[in-house]
Amino acid sequence: MKKFIISAALVLSAINLSLAQNFSSPDGDLEMSFEVKDSVPMYSLSLNGKKVIETSKLGLELKEQEDLLSGFEILETKESTYDNTWTPVWGETKEIRNHYNELAVTMNQPSTDRKLVIRFRLFDEGLGFRYEFPEQANLVYFVIEEERTQFAMTGDHTAFWIPGDYDSQEYDYTESKLSEIREMFDVALTDNASQEQFSKTGVQTSLMMKTEDGLYINLHEAALKEYSLMNLNLDEENMIFESWLTPDAIGNKGYIQAPAESPWRTIMVSDDARDILASNMNLNLNEPNKIDDTSWIKPIKYIGVWWEMITGKSSWAYTDELPAVKLGETDYTKTKPNGKHAANTEHVKEYIDFAAEHGFDGVLVEGWNEGWEDWFGKSKDYVFNFVTPYPDFDVEEIHKYAQSKGVKMIMHHETSGAIRNYERHMDTAYKFMNKYDYPAVKSGYVGDIIPRGEHHYGQWAINHFLYAVEKAADYKVMVNAHEAVRPTGLRRTYPNLIGNESARGTEFQAFGGSKPNHVTILPFTRLIGGPMDYTPGIFEMDISKLNPDNNSHVNSTLANQLALYVTMYSPLQMAADLPENYMKFPDAFQFIKDVALDWDDSDYLEAEPGDYITVARKEKGGNNWFVGNVNGNDARTSKIKFDFLDNDKEYIATVYSDAADAHYKDNPQAYEIKKYRVNSKSQLSQRSAPGGGYAISIMEAERSETRGLEKL
Amino acid sequence: MKKFIISAALVLSAINLSLAQNFSSPDGDLEMSFEVKDSVPMYSLSLNGKKVIETSKLGLELKEQEDLLSGFEILETKESTYDNTWTPVWGETKEIRNHYNELAVTMNQPSTDRKLVIRFRLFDEGLGFRYEFPEQANLVYFVIEEERTQFAMTGDHTAFWIPGDYDSQEYDYTESKLSEIREMFDVALTDNASQEQFSKTGVQTSLMMKTEDGLYINLHEAALKEYSLMNLNLDEENMIFESWLTPDAIGNKGYIQAPAESPWRTIMVSDDARDILASNMNLNLNEPNKIDDTSWIKPIKYIGVWWEMITGKSSWAYTDELPAVKLGETDYTKTKPNGKHAANTEHVKEYIDFAAEHGFDGVLVEGWNEGWEDWFGKSKDYVFNFVTPYPDFDVEEIHKYAQSKGVKMIMHHETSGAIRNYERHMDTAYKFMNKYDYPAVKSGYVGDIIPRGEHHYGQWAINHFLYAVEKAADYKVMVNAHEAVRPTGLRRTYPNLIGNESARGTEFQAFGGSKPNHVTILPFTRLIGGPMDYTPGIFEMDISKLNPDNNSHVNSTLANQLALYVTMYSPLQMAADLPENYMKFPDAFQFIKDVALDWDDSDYLEAEPGDYITVARKEKGGNNWFVGNVNGNDARTSKIKFDFLDNDKEYIATVYSDAADAHYKDNPQAYEIKKYRVNSKSQLSQRSAPGGGYAISIMEAERSETRGLEKL
Repeated sequence: MKKFIISAALVLSAINLSLAQNFSSPDGDLEMSFEVKDSVPMYSLSLNGKKVIETSKLGLELKEQEDLLSGFEILETKESTYDNTWTPVWGETKEIRNHYNELAVTMNQPSTDRKLVIRFRLFDEGLGFRYEFPEQANLVYFVIEEERTQFAMTGDHTAFWIPGDYDSQEYDYTESKLSEIREMFDVALTDNASQEQFSKTGVQTSLMMKTEDGLYINLHEAALKEYSLMNLNLDEENMIFESWLTPDAIGNKGYIQAPAESPWRTIMVSDDARDILASNMNLNLNEPNKIDDTSWIKPIKYIGVWWEMITGKSSWAYTDELPAVKLGETDYTKTKPNGKHAANTEHVKEYIDFAAEHGFDGVLVEGWNEGWEDWFGKSKDYVFNFVTPYPDFDVEEIHKYAQSKGVKMIMHHETSGAIRNYERHMDTAYKFMNKYDYPAVKSGYVGDIIPRGEHHYGQWAINHFLYAVEKAADYKVMVNAHEAVRPTGLRRTYPNLIGNESARGTEFQAFGGSKPNHVTILPFTRLIGGPMDYTPGIFEMDISKLNPDNNSHVNSTLANQLALYVTMYSPLQMAADLPENYMKFPDAFQFIKDVALDWDDSDYLEAEPGDYITVARKEKGGNNWFVGNVNGNDARTSKIKFDFLDNDKEYIATVYSDAADAHYKDNPQAYEIKKYRVNSKSQLSQRSAPGGGYAISIMEAERSETRGLEKL
Repeated sequence: MKKFIISAALVLSAINLSLAQNFSSPDGDLEMSFEVKDSVPMYSLSLNGKKVIETSKLGLELKEQEDLLSGFEILETKESTYDNTWTPVWGETKEIRNHYNELAVTMNQPSTDRKLVIRFRLFDEGLGFRYEFPEQANLVYFVIEEERTQFAMTGDHTAFWIPGDYDSQEYDYTESKLSEIREMFDVALTDNASQEQFSKTGVQTSLMMKTEDGLYINLHEAALKEYSLMNLNLDEENMIFESWLTPDAIGNKGYIQAPAESPWRTIMVSDDARDILASNMNLNLNEPNKIDDTSWIKPIKYIGVWWEMITGKSSWAYTDELPAVKLGETDYTKTKPNGKHAANTEHVKEYIDFAAEHGFDGVLVEGWNEGWEDWFGKSKDYVFNFVTPYPDFDVEEIHKYAQSKGVKMIMHHETSGAIRNYERHMDTAYKFMNKYDYPAVKSGYVGDIIPRGEHHYGQWAINHFLYAVEKAADYKVMVNAHEAVRPTGLRRTYPNLIGNESARGTEFQAFGGSKPNHVTILPFTRLIGGPMDYTPGIFEMDISKLNPDNNSHVNSTLANQLALYVTMYSPLQMAADLPENYMKFPDAFQFIKDVALDWDDSDYLEAEPGDYITVARKEKGGNNWFVGNVNGNDARTSKIKFDFLDNDKEYIATVYSDAADAHYKDNPQAYEIKKYRVNSKSQLSQRSAPGGGYAISIMEAERSETRGLEKL
């Protein structure tokens, strides 16, 4: 059933020039104010009378043209209401309601006779607004010097932030007061394959904050297309964040042709952190699905030849003999294999067997193609061709074998940041995937971008990332892009964009480890824009067991790893550890095999950024539910009700939890598995260890099956 | 018959460490010397004992690595001789002899244990040398800060130069002493669509010079691939030219992966200017043809819908209504045509009729595709898609009509410098050409390059230009690239590169005019690297007759325009003027119809840069000859012998010459046509007006046909 209501009221400028526009969310709790004061457009936002955003300036600084910052007067304002429910191709819920009140303000700059529209959409859980540049004589082509959108904070809030950067998002989060960002910046800044910062008070979105009077505020953007990514720079004296766009090679921040619009700038706010996680505002601010036939877009649970390279147990490269490779010239058959190349036919077949036996949809293989000997840090343009396998990787044979086992192979395209080279080979590469029945590609953009001087998050690269997704759709290919720009809800428009990394993922657990509470923050930040290919499911936390030369430790308990399949929503879920490690804990592994990938409903039971997240999700088209709890640095007892279950049904709940003595550091593999009889009246009080958590599968059951089980 | 001799002698370093290597050309006239003095590699060059290049340093400055400038010692030297004759797919002569003595010096830099090879090839008419970076442990990937190749002049020579520039070559030549370059630089610098200079003593190659003691010296480069273009910067105090490479967006001048080599640096020298024109050294320094099947590569004589737009009579754009175009969104059928759009079906058919009637192979049409309303100067990325015609251009109908008339259509791809966009559409565009039987494309790169910050002649763009030619070959497409990097003999390796502009072409005669002696310099400079699509054949010199708002004057006589078809060698020759202008002078037009495009032999009869060039060429596979004389600023009488003709044959020579009162400025259309009986004993004394010249067609004839004709 779809509701669809639109009501619009045109209020003429004359009436409004003087007074500010006041405007409320559908439920009336959220109120914004817009005014043009001293010819400068400004807005503010309050929740139930409590200020969320103090009066903040809006506008853009242009290059070689008069700025769009001041000298404005209101020409007209339009108010309207929108209420519509749509069905995502995949997602956390079966349907999504898109309900907002809209205020569109058209301003004129008499000195230049240029028009600028600012469109506000007020949802119950937040505000989205964007700049629109209508078709007009005096503003056609222009270059953005800087966007000057302000977000004025009401105080020295607590923030969960990572350093603002033009090329990397892969940082651990720092929890601090806003006033502490500058002093903590250098500590928060860790090495990465490609990175460039712009200010010691620069931070990235999605930025999660908490106020002293209990408000949760989230700043991000939606529908980033044909524009540069926005960072935020803090003016500490006034506690004002201002937009800071990513420049191109010559320092410009965006080339615009009107008619055009900026991405949406989003402010989510609530006194309940769970509302931030449950919000669909970011998705709703994106355009509807553009892909007509979506029958080929399917969630994927997969394993892969990957973790053994990440840990250093194996290598992507085929040989250690070559100082440099020239594709098409280097003859690998004449080189000495290093004996550590994991992507070989025999080994891949073992993975295929394991996937088939345990019901995984796909097998990812990295390091299958020529070029890994000198792929990184050489500013090498022609680094990969994406279709030439190493001598020990038999594409045809592997394809046939996987097909015979009902398993799909998953392609890997590492670009090494050489975007031109990737685009030159893209058609051939996608055709190759079609030929050998690869439904999805994991693409990578490790290292500095070529063309040199461009950044990962500049308009140039952002244009490419979307180009790759659109082209993939032409070939019915799903894309999971790593090191690409962080998502901003584009998956609604392009549902074949089934995953992104764009944050500090599990590999960092093998590179020295991540903070134990990292996963209690990601859903409040990185995941606001879209799903993450976090690659959970690590059972062996002592990496030296895989590679004696690697003393890294995975800062997580095994139960926590299981919970991630529910808390880190993604239609693409990897079981990242080695098959042999899963075989050591078959009972715990069962949860990874059981857990669903796609959902009819999601119910956020508990949430506090940095501390804990507990969510229950109902599998798509079924009655089974799965619950995940991830816990932060300190032990905590989670108390949940099962009232999300149907009243008239009985279920068997299998609880995978930390053992009493579990701890992410010294005892991560200590877990317990208990079965209970549960229904909608049941309650659970469950302790989670530091860096721990629990996972529950709740399967509908006949009374007969539940006999003898303890009742919760 | 092919000769092939190789003799090699390895002389061990021990013997040579101390003394300089002296080394001669096959005829012994040219001698070079190489030595490592104070650990710095140096060379010099003399002709018959007369110094041409004083001792000059060699080497490269590297980024973040120790330079390759000094600290060298000679490891070994190799001498060899090469003599081989090859057959070009098309060219000025039937066969080309490649005969040189080679000296390869391998040097070691003990402090870094890096090897550098400098390879010298000494031809009778000049020296070519290049840097080679062999595969080695300590020099694999490196970035060039600057190449430091010196060309030390022996005095204050007279030079024919244009300002050194990263983005434009379209300048009039300035004749001056080397010492005068700085003061004349700003005058020599005229506006262009995209340009950036680096020094007031920076000049471009090919640089033609003349010494006071009568030597002609030419500096250029050969086989420019995967490297940045070289300009020359003059140190006036010491009269030393030094290489100055084109930087990328972040200022780097080249990214090299060993094994690799630089382009050849070339020095041609002779006491007879004709030897410079006749030399094949530049071609010989390029690699042999890489295209197996060349049956589809054919010279083309064409007309086109072009000059009427250049003069402003017509427009490329379809409408004047649109401030901005969005391809795929803009609906041209809803816009008002400007009534000046020349590329419309009906008009194009008139051109096809004219081509068919007068025996032209092809018709070029510019402005046929959507996007011309805002194509220039907007830094617009998605500016053309190369396959969508304007509503009034019926591709299918035009294709069928041309086919029925035995005429080929010639494609036009203006990229507006948006290289990424062009590469994204290239396959589709070439397929489109194959579908509609377009054998050749004229591509254009007007305006600043996108990716922004890159230059027309940087390594990035140079990689693209060759990529476009190689990809075109896959589709059996011939390329004529305008605003691309100037040629360096690559046509030997890729004979489908049948033309380039890369210099100030005829269009500038409609933009204010070029110097009358421009065409007496181009063959000594721009044409050294390859043929130019100069688009000659302008009969109406008063541009206001085509467009009342354009008062430009073509600084050339009509006879001079005819001579260009012989003096400006190219397998691609346009008759650029409007059909109606040819119909006013059908007798003169006959020469353009008669003149050949491809040659078995070329005989340079007279040559002095800036003053005059007279050349006789024998048509491929026939006995007819064609002679062209272009004359400079002052009237001159050209005296030529016809001894290039076969002794036993009789010919009819039709001489198209300036009338007695002709002058490029006030009386450009005054010409005479006389027929003579000639044989190998004949001689001609013919006056050419300022900016004038003459053209002769010499057709073998039976005695009976020559009766009554005056004998020369």
